[in-house]
Amino acid sequence: MIGIVGGLGPYGGLDITKKIIDETAARSDQEHLPLLLFSCPNLISDRTAYLLDKSNVNPGKAIAAILRQLEMAGATIAAIPSNTAHAEPIFSVVQDERARMGSTLKLLHIVYETVRFVDENYPDTTVGILSTAGEQICSLYREAFIRKGFVVVEPEGSQQEKVNNAIYDEDYGIKAQPVPIANKAREDLLLVMDDLKKKGAQVIILGCAELPLAIPERDYNGMIVIDPNRILARALVHSLAPDKLKPL
Amino acid sequence: MIGIVGGLGPYGGLDITKKIIDETAARSDQEHLPLLLFSCPNLISDRTAYLLDKSNVNPGKAIAAILRQLEMAGATIAAIPSNTAHAEPIFSVVQDERARMGSTLKLLHIVYETVRFVDENYPDTTVGILSTAGEQICSLYREAFIRKGFVVVEPEGSQQEKVNNAIYDEDYGIKAQPVPIANKAREDLLLVMDDLKKKGAQVIILGCAELPLAIPERDYNGMIVIDPNRILARALVHSLAPDKLKPL
Repeated sequence: MIGIVGGLGPYGGLDITKKIIDETAARSDQEHLPLLLFSCPNLISDRTAYLLDKSNVNPGKAIAAILRQLEMAGATIAAIPSNTAHAEPIFSVVQDERARMGSTLKLLHIVYETVRFVDENYPDTTVGILSTAGEQICSLYREAFIRKGFVVVEPEGSQQEKVNNAIYDEDYGIKAQPVPIANKAREDLLLVMDDLKKKGAQVIILGCAELPLAIPERDYNGMIVIDPNRILARALVHSLAPDKLKPL
Repeated sequence: MIGIVGGLGPYGGLDITKKIIDETAARSDQEHLPLLLFSCPNLISDRTAYLLDKSNVNPGKAIAAILRQLEMAGATIAAIPSNTAHAEPIFSVVQDERARMGSTLKLLHIVYETVRFVDENYPDTTVGILSTAGEQICSLYREAFIRKGFVVVEPEGSQQEKVNNAIYDEDYGIKAQPVPIANKAREDLLLVMDDLKKKGAQVIILGCAELPLAIPERDYNGMIVIDPNRILARALVHSLAPDKLKPL
């Protein structure tokens, strides 16, 4: 059974659950994979606040406790659909707690699964990373790609500001206005992607859970667009039932 | 905590989970309600096949077993997002099994919650029912509304055939082609709703989980359109945290 740590935020848990179902080849309800979504946002303190030193509660402990509950309910493989939760200061606590509890649940890592997917399907490409989840997530993606020999390009200066505002602006940002997405948020992101294309990007990583809401395309301006939540969903299906994974 | 019996089908469990989050007034992730979605479609045999005597496995036992697991994981209130699972031959087995296991989990009923909602918000109206989940669900809605004093109108003959085909047709039916919905499925359903309007309908019940995919409107041609999954989601939020229920 697949276990999902939901609630960070609630729509992120919903999104990966939908993608697991979408990516499973099934001709009837019964052929779909067993799945447990544990969405307890009330138990998990804010990830970004912790990383920015605005809170001293590390959410890693609560995440590990939920993973334990998923394991006790029968999950054999699990994932955390949040880029920020994989930042080292949080994820290391998750892993320490799991070791302390003697967990044998297999836990996938959103960044490493994404890098592995790109390496298998689009090797030797130049990768552009879009992210606002703080420097820790950007550098996690950047370093993992560079370690595999990829060339990495990122938005700088006013371009990075456009990405931040497309997500956080209180008027037109995706967090403030998710349905429908404001034209300005989407158009600014496309401009940044065009700029990364000029810098040589062949693959774009949407390294923040809000970005696929504004950029649902799987390719844009000749570049492959990668949604890490979808890659994580595919990796879960592949681990549990490789024969049921839909073709790309 | 809210428990959801998912997997009948997988998208139905996803749909009510989304609606619980949508209907909760929350200014941060942490203010959302704790929720457990147990989606084990592999454990639950086909409901319609059982009702139509094509299978002799009553899915009620598996549904009760999942409710037990939700209860043991901490759920205090639960729902089954499927009209068909509430047909008497299945639902009575769910309730018998729960009684045998000494369950104290509160379980909401999709039909009775829908009737109660309409009675509270749109009393003394004429209600039109759209359903294809077999005569048992139609009559469950019909009888519950009549008991409360409502006048009930339903599609007949070629009109009922239009509804069945809009859901089951292998070319244009919603089950075969959910994204995007075929024009013919939606247009036929709108024609049937226009016909119910002529018969006096003021409220339309979308008594089959596929119908809200084709008819997302909350009102149409002067009639109120009711999505029972959304009503069930609202009833769950109201039971757990009445102050967090969004206004209609």
